[in-house]
Amino acid sequence: LTKPSDVSPETEEMKQFLDSLKYDSNGLVTAIAQDVDTGAILMQGFASRLAIAYTLQHKKACFFSRSRQQLWCKGESSSNFINVDSVHVDCDKDSLIYLGVPTGPTCHTGAHTCYYKRVDGADGLILGAAKDGRHKAEEALTTLYELEATIAERKREVIKEGAKPSWTRRLLEDPELLCSKIREEAGELCETYEKDEGKERAASECADVLYHAMVLLNVQGVEIADVMEVLRNRFGVSGVEEKAKRTPKSKLIDPSKE
Amino acid sequence: LTKPSDVSPETEEMKQFLDSLKYDSNGLVTAIAQDVDTGAILMQGFASRLAIAYTLQHKKACFFSRSRQQLWCKGESSSNFINVDSVHVDCDKDSLIYLGVPTGPTCHTGAHTCYYKRVDGADGLILGAAKDGRHKAEEALTTLYELEATIAERKREVIKEGAKPSWTRRLLEDPELLCSKIREEAGELCETYEKDEGKERAASECADVLYHAMVLLNVQGVEIADVMEVLRNRFGVSGVEEKAKRTPKSKLIDPSKE
Ligand SMILES: [Zn+2]
Ligand SMILES: [Zn+2]
Ligand SMILES: [Zn+2]
Ligand SMILES: [Zn+2]
Ligand SMILES: [Zn+2]
Ligand SMILES: [Zn+2]
Ligand SMILES: [Zn+2]
Ligand SMILES: [Zn+2]
Ligand SMILES: [Zn+2]
Repeated sequence: LTKPSDVSPETEEMKQFLDSLKYDSNGLVTAIAQDVDTGAILMQGFASRLAIAYTLQHKKACFFSRSRQQLWCKGESSSNFINVDSVHVDCDKDSLIYLGVPTGPTCHTGAHTCYYKRVDGADGLILGAAKDGRHKAEEALTTLYELEATIAERKREVIKEGAKPSWTRRLLEDPELLCSKIREEAGELCETYEKDEGKERAASECADVLYHAMVLLNVQGVEIADVMEVLRNRFGVSGVEEKAKRTPKSKLIDPSKE
Repeated sequence: LTKPSDVSPETEEMKQFLDSLKYDSNGLVTAIAQDVDTGAILMQGFASRLAIAYTLQHKKACFFSRSRQQLWCKGESSSNFINVDSVHVDCDKDSLIYLGVPTGPTCHTGAHTCYYKRVDGADGLILGAAKDGRHKAEEALTTLYELEATIAERKREVIKEGAKPSWTRRLLEDPELLCSKIREEAGELCETYEKDEGKERAASECADVLYHAMVLLNVQGVEIADVMEVLRNRFGVSGVEEKAKRTPKSKLIDPSKE
């Protein structure tokens, strides 16, 4: 278990920062753990002064458990840590984001995020946690991951006799067609520049490229999160301290010229 | 101002849902507003029973202001609303995500998110809010948006005489080269399938396509968030109720075959 003695004494600067936060009557601020690659909100807890210092020192998401009234480093029992890349503070200093990389599922239920239920707005019913492809069906999926889930759904759906399969399904079943579309869409994206077609066309053609590339990822069993990880490893550096070193961003390593 | 009378009486199902939440001693749960396109955490507040009912009924993010002890619909004074697409609940039912589309900057400072400060892990200093391209420099940027910021930084950076410009800078200054790279990378992505090169190569080549496409977006003054909006409008449906209708996802409209 994580103990107060695991936290090193505060430096003057650390003290100044911790003093500047607006703690509630229990000495806590909100702390939200977010996946740096997917943007998924993994979990939300509360952090005491010690928990924040621990997080900054050990680069692992640490909270204060209100039920057990003690310091709690996420992963201390499950070994599913959240390695924290950077810590961000909101405008009125009562809320933190722990931005980082989870080493396993965050939720004790085995789900990768704790937010896998959705409220049905029409009647307030909680829709359950049925597995839906790579994600739980009712997760808070942002646009790119919603699209990934939709493509996965297209793959699974049963097409009734005589019914026309969706365009995505056709692409999934005909990767040669899909590859010719990817090359075509890349060309169309370039043409928005070459023929000066304007911003809207550029955004639209980039969306085409992204959509078709994601269908090919599904065909190959690759997740868009894997692509993000590649980009992070190429362009980013991990760890709170390294991230601090990063300013100015111009010091970042460029991708190797192929 | 938002009044309790703006909330319709609870249906039986809504009552059941609201009863099921774990409110703290002040009758509040945490509510986190997240941008459905970018995944950016916009703000975090607390929600009372009434605030949650309001959010579900009006599809606008509503909170309970602890300082003013009253219902507070984000945007009621600034007109910068957060249109809520869907509401998600965490595993122990004391925290909500309001996933949606902001109609303007979320923060009263004019920043699009309230989390625009970063704590320097080395010394606990809070790094400021200097503008850095499209984003505040110390925002909690996820991988894709960090890459976008890095590309923007490459465009601005001053290259010393005799110094070699970065690869990104070269592409930015030579869009013809960039376009030939985009076509080449699209081909390489297809080849990972055609030559069965495996998942790692597929993820890596997809990252190449995405990176080069994003450089072209910068050249054209387009944000990756614009591309996400295109994808959402094509594949998604907006609004809590429409989203409820969406299950099963197979009912979603496919992109038009070009
Ligand atoms: Zn705050
Ligand atoms: Zn959980
Ligand atoms: Zn998921
Ligand atoms: Zn196209
Ligand atoms: Zn919770
Ligand atoms: Zn703010
Ligand atoms: Zn931003
Ligand atoms: Zn290449
Ligand atoms: Zn390549």
